[in-house]
Amino acid sequence: MAYDGVETPHGRVDRMLGGAATYISLASSYFTRTRIVAVVGDDFAKEDTDLLEKRGVDLEGLERVPGKTFFWAGKYTPDMNDRETLTTELNVFAEFNPKLPVNYRDDPYLLLGNIQPKLQRHVRSQMNKLRLAGGDTMNFWIKDFREELLATIREWDFLLINDAEARMLSGQANLKKAAQAILDMGPHTLVIKRGEFGAMLFRKDSYFIVPGYLLETVFDPTGAGDCFAGGFMGYLAQQGFDLEADHISRGELSRAVIYGSVMGSFCCERFGVERFRTLERAEIDARFEEFRRFTSF
Amino acid sequence: MAYDGVETPHGRVDRMLGGAATYISLASSYFTRTRIVAVVGDDFAKEDTDLLEKRGVDLEGLERVPGKTFFWAGKYTPDMNDRETLTTELNVFAEFNPKLPVNYRDDPYLLLGNIQPKLQRHVRSQMNKLRLAGGDTMNFWIKDFREELLATIREWDFLLINDAEARMLSGQANLKKAAQAILDMGPHTLVIKRGEFGAMLFRKDSYFIVPGYLLETVFDPTGAGDCFAGGFMGYLAQQGFDLEADHISRGELSRAVIYGSVMGSFCCERFGVERFRTLERAEIDARFEEFRRFTSF
Repeated sequence: MAYDGVETPHGRVDRMLGGAATYISLASSYFTRTRIVAVVGDDFAKEDTDLLEKRGVDLEGLERVPGKTFFWAGKYTPDMNDRETLTTELNVFAEFNPKLPVNYRDDPYLLLGNIQPKLQRHVRSQMNKLRLAGGDTMNFWIKDFREELLATIREWDFLLINDAEARMLSGQANLKKAAQAILDMGPHTLVIKRGEFGAMLFRKDSYFIVPGYLLETVFDPTGAGDCFAGGFMGYLAQQGFDLEADHISRGELSRAVIYGSVMGSFCCERFGVERFRTLERAEIDARFEEFRRFTSF
Repeated sequence: MAYDGVETPHGRVDRMLGGAATYISLASSYFTRTRIVAVVGDDFAKEDTDLLEKRGVDLEGLERVPGKTFFWAGKYTPDMNDRETLTTELNVFAEFNPKLPVNYRDDPYLLLGNIQPKLQRHVRSQMNKLRLAGGDTMNFWIKDFREELLATIREWDFLLINDAEARMLSGQANLKKAAQAILDMGPHTLVIKRGEFGAMLFRKDSYFIVPGYLLETVFDPTGAGDCFAGGFMGYLAQQGFDLEADHISRGELSRAVIYGSVMGSFCCERFGVERFRTLERAEIDARFEEFRRFTSF
C-alpha cells in the first residue's frame, strides 16, 4: 500500500492513496471477501483504511509500523501508454517481511503482488490449503533476480504480466512464442496485459484475446493493471474454482479476463482510487455485457 | 499496381509485385469477381498479370503505358510496427487518370485505393448504379489536400484508415472521439485498422472491436492493410448488400471486419503476395472460425 503522486494530461495529484494491494483488493472486493497483507507507516490516514473497510476488505494482515508509507511519483506521456518515475521512496516497505495472520492461512486463493520473488515464495509457503495461486512481477525482478523469480513462479498456477515483461522474461519478441516459453516455466495459465490494447490469456492448448475497452477519456491509468488482477482473481474466487481438480475451463478463465478488463477500465475513469468510491456491482456487470456486444460477431 | 523493395527482420526482397490494387484484388478475389483499374509500365511482367488472372481478376481496366511501373522501397523497424520509406518512384503513376471501362460502370460495389482524393471522386462519378462505395486515404492527403479529401469522403459509405490517420483527420487523440468526428464528415461506417492490435468498426449507434490475429512469425506486413480492405469489401459484395435500403447490419459488417482481418493475417505470413499463390478459401474460413474461438467468452 502506498501514496502516489501522479501527473497525467488531465491533471495532477501530489499525494493520493495507491499501491498494488489497495487497487487489487478494491477491485476484488466486488466479487469476494478479500484479505490483504501489506505494510504502511504511521502517516497512513484513517480515511484510507475506512475506504477499504467500507468495501469489506479484511485488514487484519495490514501491518502498521513507525515511519512513512511507501511513496511513488510519476508522470505519464501524452498518450498515457508510458510513464516516467519521478520518485520512489521505499520507506517502511524496505523492511517489509509479510507475515500471514493465522486466520488467512487456510484460504484457497492467493494473489501475490509485485514484490521481491523470495518474499512472494515465502508468503505462498505459509498457506495450507491453496487451490489457486498466482501473481505479478516486474522488469526489475526479471532482470536482476531471475533465478529467484523462476523458482517462485514454478509453483504458481498463473502469472499475470504485461507484454514488455513477457518478452523480457521469455527472451522472445513474438508474444505467441513468448507465451509458450513462459508456460514451460511452470504456470499453466498466463495472462498478458497490453494496456489500452487489451489482454491475452494463454494455456498449453488454447488462447483467448480481448481488445481493450474504449474509454472516451482516460484520466489516470495508475492501478489499472492491479485492478485487472483483482477483477480476474476475484471472479475466479467467487466461482469457487479448484484448479487441482482441473475444474476450471477456458470459458471461465476468459470471463475472468473480461472482468479484469472491466475493473481496469473503471480504474482509468478517475484519478487514483476515486472511481471505487461510487462504483457498484451492477455497473460492472453492465460493462461485462458491453464487452460481449462490442466483441461478438 | 507497383513493384516493391522490402526489408524486414526476416529478409529482404529487392523487387516484387506490390501495390494497393494488387493486394486488394487478390484478397477480394476469394469472395467475389473483382475488377481492377490501375496503371503499369511496359516493364510489368506477364507472370504478374498471370497471377491475377489465375485468381479470376478482371484486368480490362489495367492500363499499360510506356515507361516504368511505380516503385516503392521501404525498411521495417525491428518490431515491424513502423517502416521507413527508402524510395518512391512515381513513374507512370504520376500521370495516372483512371478511366473506367464501360463494362465496369454498372457494378454495385466500389473500393477506392489510396490516390489523390480528386481522382477518387472522379472514379466514383463514373459509376451509375452504386450500392456501396468507400475507400482508403493517407496522411499526405489528410494534411495537404484536406478540402478535396473532405468533399470526396462526404460521398462515401465507408472510410477505411489506420489509427494514426483517424487521429490526424479528426484532430482527436482519443479514438472514440475521433470516430464520432469522422462519422460526422459523411461516411456512415468507419473502419480503423490498428496493425497487430486489430481493427475497429464504428457506426453512429454501435461499435465493434477485434484484436489482431496472433501470428508466430510476421514475415512482411506490406499489403496487410490492403488485404484487409479486399477481404472486408469482398465479403460484403459476396453477400450482395444494399446499403441504400439499409439492408446491412452491424453483424454483417463485423463479419466483414473479421474476413478483412483474416486476409491481412495471411498476407503477413510470406513476403509480398507469396501467400496468395497457395491460399485456398477453406483456409480462410478455418481462420474465421479460429477468430470466433479465441475471441468468444
